[in-house]
Amino acid sequence: MVSHEDDVKRAQEALERRLEELLPAGEQMGQVYAAMRDGTLGTGKRMRPLLLVLTARDMGCALEQPGLLDMACAVEMVHAASLMLDDMPCMDNALLRRGRATIHCQYGENVAILAAVSLLSHAFGVISRTPALPGEAKSRAIAELATAIGHLGLAQGQFLDLSEGDRARDAEAIILTNTLKTSSLFDATLQMAAIAASASPGVQERLRCFARDMGQAFQLMDDLADGLNSTGKDPHKDRGKSTLVAMLGADAVCQKLHDHLHSADEHIAHACHTGSVTRRFLHAWFDNQMSLIRQNGPLSTTGCP
Amino acid sequence: MVSHEDDVKRAQEALERRLEELLPAGEQMGQVYAAMRDGTLGTGKRMRPLLLVLTARDMGCALEQPGLLDMACAVEMVHAASLMLDDMPCMDNALLRRGRATIHCQYGENVAILAAVSLLSHAFGVISRTPALPGEAKSRAIAELATAIGHLGLAQGQFLDLSEGDRARDAEAIILTNTLKTSSLFDATLQMAAIAASASPGVQERLRCFARDMGQAFQLMDDLADGLNSTGKDPHKDRGKSTLVAMLGADAVCQKLHDHLHSADEHIAHACHTGSVTRRFLHAWFDNQMSLIRQNGPLSTTGCP
Repeated sequence: MVSHEDDVKRAQEALERRLEELLPAGEQMGQVYAAMRDGTLGTGKRMRPLLLVLTARDMGCALEQPGLLDMACAVEMVHAASLMLDDMPCMDNALLRRGRATIHCQYGENVAILAAVSLLSHAFGVISRTPALPGEAKSRAIAELATAIGHLGLAQGQFLDLSEGDRARDAEAIILTNTLKTSSLFDATLQMAAIAASASPGVQERLRCFARDMGQAFQLMDDLADGLNSTGKDPHKDRGKSTLVAMLGADAVCQKLHDHLHSADEHIAHACHTGSVTRRFLHAWFDNQMSLIRQNGPLSTTGCP
Repeated sequence: MVSHEDDVKRAQEALERRLEELLPAGEQMGQVYAAMRDGTLGTGKRMRPLLLVLTARDMGCALEQPGLLDMACAVEMVHAASLMLDDMPCMDNALLRRGRATIHCQYGENVAILAAVSLLSHAFGVISRTPALPGEAKSRAIAELATAIGHLGLAQGQFLDLSEGDRARDAEAIILTNTLKTSSLFDATLQMAAIAASASPGVQERLRCFARDMGQAFQLMDDLADGLNSTGKDPHKDRGKSTLVAMLGADAVCQKLHDHLHSADEHIAHACHTGSVTRRFLHAWFDNQMSLIRQNGPLSTTGCP
């Protein structure tokens, strides 16, 4: 019997291959293109594209289904572009990302902006050109992605985080920012899985709920991990920010994280009848992250998933 | 008989109305959204969306044809986003645009970047959601737009202009930069007109040639106008840049401009059988620009169209 790890590995390899095909090495393509490749290839956990592919598979799609990998790679390009911009001096002013110098430190601010814009456009271009996916399916996928990026999604979340993050704010405001910063791209990701699998409106709705829980869980995990330098990012970037960890304490946040993961698990179980690779993948991934946090951080072991 | 000015005015009013509908005033939408509206509405010559609408009309489309205005507004949003980013301190560092403070001066650099990214995404979203345009037509339009923006279009043109503009370069390098900076978005604009009109491959090709000439003509006009402060931009931004005007002199550039306009006119006349509003509109527009330049600049009157 094939273990879920084999399934995940196969999806991961297929994603890396397709990303490399969609951003092929080219001579004399210049700095903008080099920065696009640098920000996307070779690094990154590929969490979003993996989620897209695995969920679609759990709903009955083959890994080879036309358009599936292209939609997943488009999501990863959008994610990579958003990280480049978040790291800019006028945003989070980060010097390190995934253990390496950030794109603007390597290539300059202007190239970082132009590369991010080019990656975003390329993502839309990739979906619009993917063979065999019907025109209507492409339009729906593009509409989901556009909403996730803009003033109702990532961009607005980043703005709220920048403008309100260092002021006192209530839990509700923090949760809204987390939703915009993280859940919105998860939402588009999961809706693309639904599009690939021609899922029913009921399943689409379940996947929206799943995305919401996953986004919150990710942001809470990120907040818990802050202060550890094992993440490859500048440590303590969030010091002084009004996060839920600062407000409620690490143990209460662990409990919240546990609740979101439990709820996410119920939603994905309802959405996917033919497989459970996504669920097992997520359990393993969050378990692993929590052990890293426990090894490095000041957490008690009570209340944590 | 309806004059071409009436046709242009009607198209202009329809565009302004549709832009306002696609970026409606909203309370509590925040700074990012305000900057998106500010950078797009109320100002601007609307040259690209007008070209799209008028060319489509000259090929037999009605102004009311579903999707036509939406594609035109999407092009204008992309143009507005590109101006916001070009003006940034790490790019052209401009303080004035269309006679007003640039977006980053008004809202800050981070909001300018987030608003530009949101406008780009919104442009793709608008096309993907436009009612009644078939899915395949939307995908083709989105593919054209994506190519025009990224590392094979605007972004690469801006990079070349920034990195090579102040070094000695030959006429060929300047023309390539001009093509990427200006012709690429004209190209997508005219291809969307072709999509709206279900134009034949032969007509599509003519429109690509027209776009190439138009882009060069626009860039030459822009270079000629530099140094005049009637444009609403920072004057003399191009001083020290290796433009064709600096290399060949204003009169020779005028002759080149004339040649491009003549060639553009032939291409558009071949592409459009049922109308000539676009041609008359462009003649009037370039005539007007040239008189402004003659009134303010050091041009001789020989050789100029």
